[in-house]
Amino acid sequence: MKQIKEAFLQFIEFDEDSMNEFVSRYSKKVFSKKEIIQKQGVVNDSVYFINKGLIRAFTTDLDGAEHTCFFAMENKFVSDYTSFLTNKPGSYSLQALEDTEVVVMSKDEITESYGTSLEANMIGRKIAEHYFIFFDTRIQDMLLKTPLERYNDLAEALPNIHQRVPQHMLASYLNISAVHLSRIKGI
Amino acid sequence: MKQIKEAFLQFIEFDEDSMNEFVSRYSKKVFSKKEIIQKQGVVNDSVYFINKGLIRAFTTDLDGAEHTCFFAMENKFVSDYTSFLTNKPGSYSLQALEDTEVVVMSKDEITESYGTSLEANMIGRKIAEHYFIFFDTRIQDMLLKTPLERYNDLAEALPNIHQRVPQHMLASYLNISAVHLSRIKGI
Repeated sequence: MKQIKEAFLQFIEFDEDSMNEFVSRYSKKVFSKKEIIQKQGVVNDSVYFINKGLIRAFTTDLDGAEHTCFFAMENKFVSDYTSFLTNKPGSYSLQALEDTEVVVMSKDEITESYGTSLEANMIGRKIAEHYFIFFDTRIQDMLLKTPLERYNDLAEALPNIHQRVPQHMLASYLNISAVHLSRIKGI
Repeated sequence: MKQIKEAFLQFIEFDEDSMNEFVSRYSKKVFSKKEIIQKQGVVNDSVYFINKGLIRAFTTDLDGAEHTCFFAMENKFVSDYTSFLTNKPGSYSLQALEDTEVVVMSKDEITESYGTSLEANMIGRKIAEHYFIFFDTRIQDMLLKTPLERYNDLAEALPNIHQRVPQHMLASYLNISAVHLSRIKGI
């Protein structure tokens, strides 16, 4: 549980005993490459912290086309967080793109800690803020940045993503064609 | 300050003395119809709670075209929250579409309360979650809902928006043409 403790410490200060008690309630789980972790249309009741591996979130639209919406790798939290918060069927599928080990934080455990713990609320606030910024920036970048700028931002945020993810998924994430993506990479 | 107290009470329980102390630090401000409250490119250091009126957020894209991104009316919080959280120049302009009265919550006041107050962190967490859900749903609805469904959702969330906002701004928000919007309204 070393990695998730370090991730929490980036959000807030935490004395060692409280931290150990806090993480003791969570368990690990392993998913194989290509395995679906969470299916679109199903209520999502967990937040996952990635110890090792890579997860893709995608949505199948009204016409049956698949859109890659975001990626998450080591030391990041991932969830269909809207479904988690609202208890409504999720609009994302989550898929392991490599053999992946996660720490599973269930809704019941998280909700319980919010009732009593200042630290849990601080962490919950910071995680919600973090994902708010990520989604807002994603919407705004489509208006305010060129595909090349968005490609470079992705490479900066997730350094070796281009070696780990099929090109058609990267193109889908960037909302450009595969041909456009190869042209950008050739620059 | 009656309205903002009621809004806070929808998020969490709050005893009257703590609540009065909590809201006493905030002040009111009035904006005229068409006034720009916050300008794209400038760091935003406030969250506004709307007592009366209507505010539009819009972004001017790389080609100089204006996109209406969201609306907020009475009893809602509004901000360029990414800019507020990151201290980076904002990507939204906020404009009053009617004479508008707000409660201004400054970054300094909010940050101070996060250091000590469980309630402040709960409220901060719930506001961040609320806006996360709003932005995530907005992205996903573009993939998963028809323009008619999105039009009806907007009418449900902000009941009299169609009488209060120029049609071209509504069309821009829905990401459809003004002609498409009149066709939908004719159904």
